[in-house]
Amino acid sequence: MELYFMGTNAGVPSLERNVTSLALRLLDERRSFWLFDCGEGTQHQILRSPLKLSKLECIFITHLHGDHLFGLPGLLSSRAYQGGDTPLALYGPPGLKKYVNTSLELSESRINYKLEIVEHEGGCLFEDATFRVESAKLDHRIASYGYRVIEKDLPGKLDTELLKKYGITPGPLYGKLKRGESILTPEGKHLQPADVLGQVKKGRVVTILGDTRPCPAEIPLAEGADALVHEATFLHDLAETAYTYHHSTARQAAEAAKEAGAKSLYLTHFSSRYKYEDQLQRLKQEAEEVFPSSRLAREHELYPILRSGE
Amino acid sequence: MELYFMGTNAGVPSLERNVTSLALRLLDERRSFWLFDCGEGTQHQILRSPLKLSKLECIFITHLHGDHLFGLPGLLSSRAYQGGDTPLALYGPPGLKKYVNTSLELSESRINYKLEIVEHEGGCLFEDATFRVESAKLDHRIASYGYRVIEKDLPGKLDTELLKKYGITPGPLYGKLKRGESILTPEGKHLQPADVLGQVKKGRVVTILGDTRPCPAEIPLAEGADALVHEATFLHDLAETAYTYHHSTARQAAEAAKEAGAKSLYLTHFSSRYKYEDQLQRLKQEAEEVFPSSRLAREHELYPILRSGE
Ligand SMILES: [Zn+2]
Ligand SMILES: [Zn+2]
Repeated sequence: MELYFMGTNAGVPSLERNVTSLALRLLDERRSFWLFDCGEGTQHQILRSPLKLSKLECIFITHLHGDHLFGLPGLLSSRAYQGGDTPLALYGPPGLKKYVNTSLELSESRINYKLEIVEHEGGCLFEDATFRVESAKLDHRIASYGYRVIEKDLPGKLDTELLKKYGITPGPLYGKLKRGESILTPEGKHLQPADVLGQVKKGRVVTILGDTRPCPAEIPLAEGADALVHEATFLHDLAETAYTYHHSTARQAAEAAKEAGAKSLYLTHFSSRYKYEDQLQRLKQEAEEVFPSSRLAREHELYPILRSGE
Repeated sequence: MELYFMGTNAGVPSLERNVTSLALRLLDERRSFWLFDCGEGTQHQILRSPLKLSKLECIFITHLHGDHLFGLPGLLSSRAYQGGDTPLALYGPPGLKKYVNTSLELSESRINYKLEIVEHEGGCLFEDATFRVESAKLDHRIASYGYRVIEKDLPGKLDTELLKKYGITPGPLYGKLKRGESILTPEGKHLQPADVLGQVKKGRVVTILGDTRPCPAEIPLAEGADALVHEATFLHDLAETAYTYHHSTARQAAEAAKEAGAKSLYLTHFSSRYKYEDQLQRLKQEAEEVFPSSRLAREHELYPILRSGE
């Protein structure tokens, strides 16, 4: 499980950074990746990345501002063009369906895979055996959502060496133990699951927030998250500007991470005014003063999300 | 007057080339530039070019396929963001207005300049003192148009040195000569305009065609053009594929240039399969065999359009 940022600039692309898009790479977990937002040029960034459009499984749009959205029709078309034929699910605020369908219909784009568009206003959006995704509304100029991606705990592994010693080989008795039932060994010993099961592998939580002013909804979304991705459009000396444009400062992002008890914070969505490395370092330092595990999101770097203790 | 290509690839962007967009730079002529098509990433290409979005005066869309269109909402938004406040005129086939308005409205993009969207099905689209633009429908899978940009002839300049010798200084008599009337010198000599006017400066013609199969409509559009920009999606060994997908081969582009008596041909809109330089050279050679003044359009190069004899 890795984060891979493809756009970290606010509002418009610059020579240094593209508009917002972020991949959550789930190669080990699902043999796929998920995309969060899709600013113009995201498909171009994917060409320069280790990602393959055909492996894209879900797209989550935080809000409909152009710098998070306008790369979507091109990406959907190119996925078909490049032979992506597995279903794709697209989640986002109301209006998304009209935007996508109008663009694809007027351009007569041929999408040869199943595209499911789910408009939502928060709640539990996705759940299967290994993942759940929850969403809640933030505080932005237009409806903007945060996403909490929850990996489910993996049960501990059976200690097959130990079982062999008790004379138990793979078969129905393995199944019983996995279901939590005790079994009887050939020697007549009662074996509890806990005796032969390793530790549960705790699932990870990644929280990716859309553009937002500081707001209470952030905290449950980010609670205890292994990684929190938060916009940091401005330095705190521009807190008023941030408020006016419905954005956060680096310090405010750090305060949210701290309050939520997140384990690490990724700052992104930087105003074009922060062009040079020393300016970006100031954003980082400002956040670190409040929340030491803060880092700057850099495009085209892979950030592994480790399990606690790994 | 210069051509500046920002996208020369067909269908999808590649690592080497972007999807279609072409600027006609009219700095000396109008202190502005015009854009023909606007594939995704055009605004990114403009960042890397000598062009300034605020100087963009007109956009002409040849057809609504995504690779010619999907960069438009982002470019229009960014022009406002970057302080472009002069009016902008946008021409293209029916459906363009719905596409642009849906994208801008759903994203709540703020366009602080006058944006006029003109849907057309060919004909004379633009005319002022110095330029005229005509359009006609080509033969593509969806409605696709070619544009003929006609620079008007510049009248010859008055020979002020000669007039001085006749005792005529700047004033109402200058105006009379420019309007084609004869005048009387202080010495009583009748002076005809032709006696004191230099040669007319012939206006140039630039023809930019959308995606098309070879078709009769190309010829009047490209007649005698100083520069013809023509798609050359395939080599002629794939003429059947070209026909199936409603495209042209390099040889067919050259045949159109030859038949129309164009002065130079720019090949563009190359299939992604032509990735390497030797493949592109084969496209060029194939065209040159029919029409020697053929060249490959290269992104981020300026091609001056000279007047005949310059
Ligand atoms: Zn926003
Ligand atoms: Zn086309």
